Amino acid sequence: IRTGYPEVIFCQGKRIEHIVGIVQKMLQRENNILATRATPEVYEAIKEITNDAEYYELARIVVVKRRELEKTKGIILVATGGTADIPIAEEAAVTAEVLGNTVDRLYDVGVAGIHRLLMNSERLMRARVIIAVAGMEGALASVIGGLVDCPVIAVPTSVGYGSNFNGLSALLTMLNSCASGIGVVNIDNGFGAGYLASMINKIGERGQER
Amino acid sequence: IRTGYPEVIFCQGKRIEHIVGIVQKMLQRENNILATRATPEVYEAIKEITNDAEYYELARIVVVKRRELEKTKGIILVATGGTADIPIAEEAAVTAEVLGNTVDRLYDVGVAGIHRLLMNSERLMRARVIIAVAGMEGALASVIGGLVDCPVIAVPTSVGYGSNFNGLSALLTMLNSCASGIGVVNIDNGFGAGYLASMINKIGERGQER
Amino acid sequence: IRTGYPEVIFCQGKRIEHIVGIVQKMLQRENNILATRATPEVYEAIKEITNDAEYYELARIVVVKRRELEKTKGIILVATGGTADIPIAEEAAVTAEVLGNTVDRLYDVGVAGIHRLLMNSERLMRARVIIAVAGMEGALASVIGGLVDCPVIAVPTSVGYGSNFNGLSALLTMLNSCASGIGVVNIDNGFGAGYLASMINKIGERGQER
Amino acid sequence: IRTGYPEVIFCQGKRIEHIVGIVQKMLQRENNILATRATPEVYEAIKEITNDAEYYELARIVVVKRRELEKTKGIILVATGGTADIPIAEEAAVTAEVLGNTVDRLYDVGVAGIHRLLMNSERLMRARVIIAVAGMEGALASVIGGLVDCPVIAVPTSVGYGSNFNGLSALLTMLNSCASGIGVVNIDNGFGAGYLASMINKIGERGQER
Amino acid sequence: IRTGYPEVIFCQGKRIEHIVGIVQKMLQRENNILATRATPEVYEAIKEITNDAEYYELARIVVVKRRELEKTKGIILVATGGTADIPIAEEAAVTAEVLGNTVDRLYDVGVAGIHRLLMNSERLMRARVIIAVAGMEGALASVIGGLVDCPVIAVPTSVGYGSNFNGLSALLTMLNSCASGIGVVNIDNGFGAGYLASMINKIGERGQER
Amino acid sequence: IRTGYPEVIFCQGKRIEHIVGIVQKMLQRENNILATRATPEVYEAIKEITNDAEYYELARIVVVKRRELEKTKGIILVATGGTADIPIAEEAAVTAEVLGNTVDRLYDVGVAGIHRLLMNSERLMRARVIIAVAGMEGALASVIGGLVDCPVIAVPTSVGYGSNFNGLSALLTMLNSCASGIGVVNIDNGFGAGYLASMINKIGERGQER
Amino acid sequence: IRTGYPEVIFCQGKRIEHIVGIVQKMLQRENNILATRATPEVYEAIKEITNDAEYYELARIVVVKRRELEKTKGIILVATGGTADIPIAEEAAVTAEVLGNTVDRLYDVGVAGIHRLLMNSERLMRARVIIAVAGMEGALASVIGGLVDCPVIAVPTSVGYGSNFNGLSALLTMLNSCASGIGVVNIDNGFGAGYLASMINKIGERGQER
Amino acid sequence: IRTGYPEVIFCQGKRIEHIVGIVQKMLQRENNILATRATPEVYEAIKEITNDAEYYELARIVVVKRRELEKTKGIILVATGGTADIPIAEEAAVTAEVLGNTVDRLYDVGVAGIHRLLMNSERLMRARVIIAVAGMEGALASVIGGLVDCPVIAVPTSVGYGSNFNGLSALLTMLNSCASGIGVVNIDNGFGAGYLASMINKIGERGQER
Ligand SMILES: Nc1ncnc2c1ncn2[C@@H]1O[C@H](COP(=O)(O)O)[C@@H](O)[C@H]1O
Ligand SMILES: Nc1ncnc2c1ncn2[C@@H]1O[C@H](COP(=O)(O)O)[C@@H](O)[C@H]1O
Ligand SMILES: Nc1ncnc2c1ncn2[C@@H]1O[C@H](COP(=O)(O)O)[C@@H](O)[C@H]1O
Ligand SMILES: Nc1ncnc2c1ncn2[C@@H]1O[C@H](COP(=O)(O)O)[C@@H](O)[C@H]1O
Ligand SMILES: [Mg+2]
Ligand SMILES: [Mg+2]
Ligand SMILES: [Mg+2]
Ligand SMILES: [Mg+2]
Ligand SMILES: [Mg+2]
Ligand SMILES: [Mg+2]
Ligand SMILES: [Mg+2]
Ligand SMILES: [Mg+2]
Repeated sequence: IRTGYPEVIFCQGKRIEHIVGIVQKMLQRENNILATRATPEVYEAIKEITNDAEYYELARIVVVKRRELEKTKGIILVATGGTADIPIAEEAAVTAEVLGNTVDRLYDVGVAGIHRLLMNSERLMRARVIIAVAGMEGALASVIGGLVDCPVIAVPTSVGYGSNFNGLSALLTMLNSCASGIGVVNIDNGFGAGYLASMINKIGERGQER
Repeated sequence: IRTGYPEVIFCQGKRIEHIVGIVQKMLQRENNILATRATPEVYEAIKEITNDAEYYELARIVVVKRRELEKTKGIILVATGGTADIPIAEEAAVTAEVLGNTVDRLYDVGVAGIHRLLMNSERLMRARVIIAVAGMEGALASVIGGLVDCPVIAVPTSVGYGSNFNGLSALLTMLNSCASGIGVVNIDNGFGAGYLASMINKIGERGQER
Repeated sequence: IRTGYPEVIFCQGKRIEHIVGIVQKMLQRENNILATRATPEVYEAIKEITNDAEYYELARIVVVKRRELEKTKGIILVATGGTADIPIAEEAAVTAEVLGNTVDRLYDVGVAGIHRLLMNSERLMRARVIIAVAGMEGALASVIGGLVDCPVIAVPTSVGYGSNFNGLSALLTMLNSCASGIGVVNIDNGFGAGYLASMINKIGERGQER
Repeated sequence: IRTGYPEVIFCQGKRIEHIVGIVQKMLQRENNILATRATPEVYEAIKEITNDAEYYELARIVVVKRRELEKTKGIILVATGGTADIPIAEEAAVTAEVLGNTVDRLYDVGVAGIHRLLMNSERLMRARVIIAVAGMEGALASVIGGLVDCPVIAVPTSVGYGSNFNGLSALLTMLNSCASGIGVVNIDNGFGAGYLASMINKIGERGQER
Repeated sequence: IRTGYPEVIFCQGKRIEHIVGIVQKMLQRENNILATRATPEVYEAIKEITNDAEYYELARIVVVKRRELEKTKGIILVATGGTADIPIAEEAAVTAEVLGNTVDRLYDVGVAGIHRLLMNSERLMRARVIIAVAGMEGALASVIGGLVDCPVIAVPTSVGYGSNFNGLSALLTMLNSCASGIGVVNIDNGFGAGYLASMINKIGERGQER
Repeated sequence: IRTGYPEVIFCQGKRIEHIVGIVQKMLQRENNILATRATPEVYEAIKEITNDAEYYELARIVVVKRRELEKTKGIILVATGGTADIPIAEEAAVTAEVLGNTVDRLYDVGVAGIHRLLMNSERLMRARVIIAVAGMEGALASVIGGLVDCPVIAVPTSVGYGSNFNGLSALLTMLNSCASGIGVVNIDNGFGAGYLASMINKIGERGQER
Repeated sequence: IRTGYPEVIFCQGKRIEHIVGIVQKMLQRENNILATRATPEVYEAIKEITNDAEYYELARIVVVKRRELEKTKGIILVATGGTADIPIAEEAAVTAEVLGNTVDRLYDVGVAGIHRLLMNSERLMRARVIIAVAGMEGALASVIGGLVDCPVIAVPTSVGYGSNFNGLSALLTMLNSCASGIGVVNIDNGFGAGYLASMINKIGERGQER
Repeated sequence: IRTGYPEVIFCQGKRIEHIVGIVQKMLQRENNILATRATPEVYEAIKEITNDAEYYELARIVVVKRRELEKTKGIILVATGGTADIPIAEEAAVTAEVLGNTVDRLYDVGVAGIHRLLMNSERLMRARVIIAVAGMEGALASVIGGLVDCPVIAVPTSVGYGSNFNGLSALLTMLNSCASGIGVVNIDNGFGAGYLASMINKIGERGQER
């Protein structure tokens, strides 16, 4: 386990007893704990073994905060194409915040109404890293990538239907982007995007030491 | 065969003798002739049986013009994301022109440099129908669809590599567009887009008669 | 928001409170409202905040009509291959009607009994735009496209099983049609087809102005 | 080897020496020989070891006829959607003929111009089995299946491009046909269709004996 | 509707009122009625409007028998690879029986225990048409096709898991069979197989008349 | 590098200079060398730097034998469905032989003519491991797996066309086999099968020591 | 049925009466019985007809032990990448144990924390066969295959989400492994892996007899 | 064009005249020029219009250096699984170098021989960003991601055959990695990886300014 980093448990597909057991062991160490894909039942179960658990419902994350982290100067901006992408965006945003990052949220700025995105270009420019979360055709990452010159983490979501094929459409769009500077994570992997964005943002905090 | 319409032959995968035979029969009627996916050899062979053949190399089209069509008032705008999409765009544009349409070309305005597209929004607004031709992630159709309120014919191209899967990526993007008013044709089907755009444009020419 | 156009909300995947909030904001403006993919519960919730809500159950659409639109002279014909395609066809038809179009419905005329389609060729010929809705092998769009010379919007549906792969079969059929003049929308996207057909039909109403 | 049946060799992917060796062995028996997917070079090589070889170029078949078969009363009709499907149709037709069947060819009657097919419905009705060969969207099998009440063998071809995916589109169309009485063979498998059609046709010849 | 043939209704995805309405209309004519993919509820509803309804639970078929058909001399043999394939096999067998065919059932003779199949080769040889129903790897059709010289209708089933991909595996196996004389229908399409087998079997009954 | 094992170089996609360089280094050690996917040009180049190179053309393997290995008592049987699968089978067989195994070849025993396979069941029973190599529908592995009770290594080949999709069909068949005791390697991976079979065979040679 | 081997029934997709019937017949013979993919209800039903049934809940296996098997000297090691893979690993382990093998379990040693795997290399080395069970990217099999020189049976699991496509990702990883000596079974096929591993392990027990 | 950044042209699929025209325009500005996917012929053509062109053959890149960039303190490490991945790795490395980054190359450290990777863990730890380039099963990115705590850019390559499906296998592996901190680019997109890595590395150079 890297020091300073929270310990992470991915709850999806695990039984509650199981999750509780793992969290119990983690509580014996001093790190913050991040339980992703946590249902309300998971939250209830964790609350019984510690008073410090907080639940971010939209993000489906339980956080057990054991020590405070200083907030970064650098900003991670999290953008979504639509409102249905918000849960995944929140997974990314909360993950990044728990890791000590300053996060800016810019939701529902998809390409079908591109002016809303353009009106916010200043906020885009201020960010050190951007997380672009979009389903359906997933064009948001390309458009943002064409506007800014910071790294863009693209998160395809499974929002959509028909030939969307559960997020395949957005995934392929993002992988084939003609804009440079885009790295893609798995469909609906808000956690992974928040974690990678944090790693990148912290490089700026550390500056030239490594 | 619909009167006023050219007779069309799709040359790809046909032998030259075969194509010449078909064109010869068409020549006995009075319509214009459009031979798509025509190689230079096809052009040479057609030239031998008629003096009126013209070759649009980039579009891979041979036209035999037998009667003049009045140009439409309504404009079909053909846009491409990149320069590699131009041959398909030309297939659409030349098809539309041979069918009597006024065509405006706006090439290389892909989303990686979205400002070039936005700078041309007036031309976009003037069009009665727009054909959006794009490969790779194919986001152009969505972005244009979000800016204008005329019908957009989206043509995915096979331009790209890797997870582009020969145009599948652009095809899925276009089918899943969150912008309304987009109809999609087959990958690389410039002819089909030009033909459909012409049908729509002519509705405006005819006005309320049908 | 384009004037004259209704405001649209896509309900699928959104929470009821969320939808109600959006509709409440829309009600402050003067436009008609179209809520697609609306369950009966969504209808109940909208009825509580406005008296003008009407529910088209088969189409899964709630309409809040605030101002009357003149009906078009041009006709949009909506055809289906089977009876299981009717909900998607109704989504298209109701969308088109709310947008002010005159709509003709011709259901269950699939290719397995082609005579029923041929017997109605006069109605097909009268239309300015045709929406062809079909699942399984989706051949309806090709057959109609071969009979008429107006634009055909093809809507693949997810009706079928096995190697239908949730509509993929019908989608590919429609994209590969050898008939000219066909534009395809996403699987089950009745709304998108109705909207695009309306755009095209209105071109005829406006005539040569643009 | 079934008596009366020819011996068959599938040449594709085999070396010429190899093919010659196999044919040589077959020549020692008394049956007719059918070499499918044979290039002109294969024909030249077979001609050197027997005088009875005939080459059907379009069908890519070499036949070595050693004994005459009586022609069937029942008719196998082979139909194609386009001209590019003819080589596969000929593979089916020649196979059926070599197996002793009476074959009727009806080419280029695809659904884009459905009237040509309908004009020939009498010929369709006369057949005992129909082979429907079509690429692109492959709707021909469905349309024929809806018109007739004899078995239809559907042969998808790889003719097409883009989202045709080398015949996948036609294959799925045929498998998902809403018409009853259709059996599908592999993409481009003209031989298999001719063989199966012959088996079925011969059942009629034998009548009630089995 | 072809005389002598039953009228068929595919119930899956239709509402009960809807199905009842259709059956009611069919009852006004004199034909037998076959309702496939019928749940027990569908059966209950049909029983209320006619006394002649019978339910084949395993086959999920409701039959309304209005007139007796003479049984064929020719035999349709229905074979399955495993026991989980039996419902689809019964759909085929009952369909064939309702159409007047003599049916022989040979279940659970899959290739994992090939001796059970070989022990029954005499029954295989006696059949005029064979329907081979198999899921998982679907090799049954190939093995039977290699043993017999009558037509084989291959029905892939969705039985299996993992890389079976809901029947895709068995479907591809059957389409790529190296045995000749195999026609394939859609995954789980027992009805289609029974119907096609009946058409072929009846050719033998009619003998040389057509 | 494991002692006793040859050093292996996979030549496909590497430049000749590159391959020669690697082999030169390998020659400084004492092990046998196996160069797979070697063209005749590769062989010529290796021959220039060592006198011990032998070329197995069909297997596309160059062997540089530096020390003799004792042959195993246990037998690896390599079977193929068709003749076109032989090159891949030879890749497996030669690999196994170079690794010191006794190999038995049983080619062209595919399921379309299952009697040829059954006639050889004694040879099948004698083997300690069997490698089943088949393209098209790939049913051979299942059938053999049902007959024997030793491990079967299944090698799908890319032999076939159309819905074979370059070996996908055979691959899925083998993965979904209802026979137990089958392990699958990549499409056309004869080397991998030979290597794995050798590992298993050697377990028998070593007996209970590990 | 092979002597010494248990009789196996795959319960998934079968009705309880059905399963009970099959087990009842098996009880009349003397072999051990292995019922895989058994729910608790299946266990309850089997318990009613025999006292010897034991339920391995995690493995979803019911065992009816009728005679004791001597444990092998050779060890089968079962490793998993994550904790969510354990049920499939247990299916493999329990299968192998019921077949008389000595099994070593090494769970949750996935590549994300490779040190845990490396720390256990001695246990890896001691095994005669290894079963590597992993979902998500499935890299475990490659890493283990690179460390050991015994056969590795790779079991992809459906654990994961998004572009995992229900185990496709892990399956392809394992099939394309650059390590030699890996055989792959179907996604989630723990039984198949345990069975194949047992076959291989028993070869070592028998030694040179065959 | 961002200042300091080179101007980039992607040559694949463009005609030489076309490329020369674009480069000529770029030469009028002062920036460095990077022409990727450049054949030797492209290089020859560019050399004719400028003396400053250099060709990186393995990387398929032409660089026209117009101004020197200071090298970064932070290191980008580029690792490959095999030797066949080196061209793509060089595309990444040269891109990063031209953008002013210090690059460390660590080639042929794939998971089949994991010790070579582990032996270099110090070099891995020193890097600020790592680019992991791998084909076949693409497990390298996961293994590296599990060892380090800096961002990893994963580049799947099309190296492999069979079920590799031209890089799909490696792509899915990388997207599904259980290690955190991995961003994926398109198959074979070395340029994109080098560009994104440079963006991230420069964040460290700039430190807290943004
Ligand atoms: N939403 C997520 N998607 C993918 N990976 C995740 C997610 N949340 C956590 N993880 C990863 O899962 C690991 C914990 O997995 P586990 O040990 O199975 O709980 C963490 O270290 C993360 O790398
Ligand atoms: N059935 C539908 N399928 C696809 N898109 C739709 C559908 N109904 C509405 N839309 C689109 O969804 C937009 C509204 O999305 P939202 O803001 O998420 O409610 C509308 O402007 C339409 O473009
Ligand atoms: N065009 C074809 N497509 C598929 N199978 C064929 C074709 N032509 C011949 N065959 C089959 O291939 C078998 C001969 O294969 P072979 O022994 O490899 O020459 C014949 O018995 C036929 O079943
Ligand atoms: N035909 C083959 N298919 C797949 N892998 C192979 C093949 N031949 C050799 N290999 C593997 O490739 C490795 C050598 O690869 P390389 O270092 O790239 O030459 C060997 O250790 C084998 O594991
Ligand atoms: Mg950018
Ligand atoms: Mg628009
Ligand atoms: Mg038309
Ligand atoms: Mg019919
Ligand atoms: Mg047969
Ligand atoms: Mg076996
Ligand atoms: Mg190994
Ligand atoms: Mg890491």
